[in-house]
Amino acid sequence: MEKDILYIVKIGGNIIDDPALLQGLLGQFAGIKEKKILVHGGGKLATRMAEAMHIPQQLVEGRRITDAETLKIVTMVYAGYINKNIVAQLQALRCNAIGICGADGNAILSKKRSGTAIDYGFAGDVQAVNTNLLQELLRSNDAIVMAPITHDGNGQLLNTNADTIAQELATALGAQYTTELIYSFEKAGVLQDVADEASVIPRITPATYTTLKNSGAIHSGMVPKLDNAFTALRAGVRRVVIGKGQQLRQLINGSSGTSIIHE
Amino acid sequence: MEKDILYIVKIGGNIIDDPALLQGLLGQFAGIKEKKILVHGGGKLATRMAEAMHIPQQLVEGRRITDAETLKIVTMVYAGYINKNIVAQLQALRCNAIGICGADGNAILSKKRSGTAIDYGFAGDVQAVNTNLLQELLRSNDAIVMAPITHDGNGQLLNTNADTIAQELATALGAQYTTELIYSFEKAGVLQDVADEASVIPRITPATYTTLKNSGAIHSGMVPKLDNAFTALRAGVRRVVIGKGQQLRQLINGSSGTSIIHE
Repeated sequence: MEKDILYIVKIGGNIIDDPALLQGLLGQFAGIKEKKILVHGGGKLATRMAEAMHIPQQLVEGRRITDAETLKIVTMVYAGYINKNIVAQLQALRCNAIGICGADGNAILSKKRSGTAIDYGFAGDVQAVNTNLLQELLRSNDAIVMAPITHDGNGQLLNTNADTIAQELATALGAQYTTELIYSFEKAGVLQDVADEASVIPRITPATYTTLKNSGAIHSGMVPKLDNAFTALRAGVRRVVIGKGQQLRQLINGSSGTSIIHE
Repeated sequence: MEKDILYIVKIGGNIIDDPALLQGLLGQFAGIKEKKILVHGGGKLATRMAEAMHIPQQLVEGRRITDAETLKIVTMVYAGYINKNIVAQLQALRCNAIGICGADGNAILSKKRSGTAIDYGFAGDVQAVNTNLLQELLRSNDAIVMAPITHDGNGQLLNTNADTIAQELATALGAQYTTELIYSFEKAGVLQDVADEASVIPRITPATYTTLKNSGAIHSGMVPKLDNAFTALRAGVRRVVIGKGQQLRQLINGSSGTSIIHE
């Protein structure tokens, strides 16, 4: 029997911070006929909240160090405010979404990051995905909205990278569904020339990736994202698309963004 | 076929504010063998958050007026921080709980309160309960943890009284389950003498309630709670129990608290 298609759409911070952009993206997301999961990041609200509450925020190499007070804030903002507002907006679009975090139904079990040179605090690395639960939820709802908070099984919530969660969901659910992973961000895709939005590379395969990387045609900032995408491909994801959130429909039908594919 | 029993346990603010009390109650809740839903209120964290963020809080007759900024805070605190911490703690107790609010899966549709002398702001009155969804979630998880935030179907989240949510769930699910409603609070039950914790009235039926009320033996503050309990009974709930959260096990087996029953 052919497997159903499942789209896992990660939406980045800048979209969440812009109500009009978010509304537009949710409208396109609601229009997806197939099974779908939306994974959201945090946006600037968590930082603004921390400022208002005078909790100093520490970023090391672009990653937030999650101390106990910061964990409280990201739990409130990600799993509370952002998650529930996205769900309510999808409901208004007649998309019956259910919003959860990784602790709910033991959806995503993680482990506190340790043994690193930098102490990331309450940061979680994904250990296991409860595919049975997610399948059940996808059966009885139109969509799942996932906040990037997980748990360690011993009562501890952990802040977890949303890009990683999207990838782990896409690979774990590969046995049940034909999964496609869509990373939306502020650029139109992987650009040949960072300064030129029109220079999107429409398709990258493992073979062309090596050539592009060796020739230096790919901006160094994109390399980790692309390495990640190829990891997902190797783990059974059919396609990874990188592009602008406002063009979600076109990212899915392949007329916009960069598609990372097997061949 | 006999219906399964479903316990709906409402936990009040003072328990949520005390980590040791909460831990004890969750241990007893996790131990319930039957189907179960935990409905939590807010506690003092929302008030403290509002203070930290310099958002003035207005209470009229003990009810919080939910302006836009306050709605943001209660959504973060109730549906985010409290809900997810309770879920993570239940997971640690090997109770596979899923935490949702009323917007999730369209669980509880409500309507913004209007036409009242006081403007309560973004306060919702329950209109409909999605019993299919709740049944599905109870089938594939050990428990549901419900935050008292609902939605109006048009994208608006609404702050909703947790006592009312517990009652609406108990009555709506009466067709699928034999429901019992447990209101835990700081007192040992309905007291004959408010000053004497040992004066708990163990059982109240519609007939004895009239007598008790007429004789003035029931503290006026308890009358709305009891009127509510009898409304639930008339709507098909088998029993309503009022008592101390620390004695949840005894409230359920009937050896503590006040049971409000048909006869």
